[in-house]
Amino acid sequence: MRRQIITISREFGSGGRTIGKEVAQRLGVPCYDKELVKQVATETGLDEGYVEQKGEDAPGSSWLACAFSARGGQVGLNGLSVDDFLWAVQHRVIRELAEKGPCVFVGRCADYILRERQDCLHVFVHADPEVRADRIVRLYGESEKKPAKRLEEKDKKRRTYYKYYTGQEWGMSQNYHLCLDSGALGLDTCVDLIVGLAEKE
Amino acid sequence: MRRQIITISREFGSGGRTIGKEVAQRLGVPCYDKELVKQVATETGLDEGYVEQKGEDAPGSSWLACAFSARGGQVGLNGLSVDDFLWAVQHRVIRELAEKGPCVFVGRCADYILRERQDCLHVFVHADPEVRADRIVRLYGESEKKPAKRLEEKDKKRRTYYKYYTGQEWGMSQNYHLCLDSGALGLDTCVDLIVGLAEKE
Repeated sequence: MRRQIITISREFGSGGRTIGKEVAQRLGVPCYDKELVKQVATETGLDEGYVEQKGEDAPGSSWLACAFSARGGQVGLNGLSVDDFLWAVQHRVIRELAEKGPCVFVGRCADYILRERQDCLHVFVHADPEVRADRIVRLYGESEKKPAKRLEEKDKKRRTYYKYYTGQEWGMSQNYHLCLDSGALGLDTCVDLIVGLAEKE
Repeated sequence: MRRQIITISREFGSGGRTIGKEVAQRLGVPCYDKELVKQVATETGLDEGYVEQKGEDAPGSSWLACAFSARGGQVGLNGLSVDDFLWAVQHRVIRELAEKGPCVFVGRCADYILRERQDCLHVFVHADPEVRADRIVRLYGESEKKPAKRLEEKDKKRRTYYKYYTGQEWGMSQNYHLCLDSGALGLDTCVDLIVGLAEKE
């Protein structure tokens, strides 16, 4: 069966998002990244920035989630915490978008959420910390925190979030069909490999 | 730089050895698997079967290692346990073989041992337990133990051995340039991908 749906999970700064966009463009299918955030924000009534940050971060730790919880803990969320509510909506939106047809998902545990579909190619993109540090400074600029610290914090949040909602280890090869070191192989080669597998009958 | 040396680490029953042999044949280079065992056995004076089993198994647990240790703990091994002695020789032999030129290594922590070389492609091959169970029964026949149990025991030994000597998590994508689900992608596709990357300038 042709693998029509590509999920790309990625370490911060590995270029996974860029790879996802390029793969989608080459295949002529939508890439759900920011659009997914927008849709989840619309459905939940939460702020886009909040959805973007919390949709992959460790749950239960933000002041906003605490503030919501403090206000009766439910706020029309059917008894769920804000994080769990966000996860539930994200889960449903991802499955609905996958039903619409061929596409690429970047992040958001889409690999886990769509694990039972047979028409997916699940990819994890990683790279050495030095390569990623260089990339985030180039793309997002310097900040007060050292790049190594920024990577460590972001990776830790994604790892914790993934573990919390999937029970699996983030970046463990067994969770994906294909794992790529984008630093060693190069972004273009990663795109070629994914497109090649997606187009294979 | 062209990746002339391929290391293939693999889950038991994933077809990693078959992939390694096929890649070596396609590239016209030697595949070090049994030959490596033979050379280590010759250099250590240990039995080939023992080297094969212990060269990837959890250290310190065998009766033979204990027996050696009991006999003065050294037995001409420069104060090392048999397991550590075997690791040291294996380590040296792998580095020497890599110096000889392009080749494929299957197993034996070659990815870790050669991690500082820039001309390597480090691959990890895995597959779902059901696929692997089916494969080991087909290749090695039935045994008293259920296939799932055989997989679990073998994987656990390899994981423990790898962790003990490398300090790293076996199968963690970050340790490899490329991780492949041979069950989902098929052995031929895995071979094609590896050969393609090895031949890339």
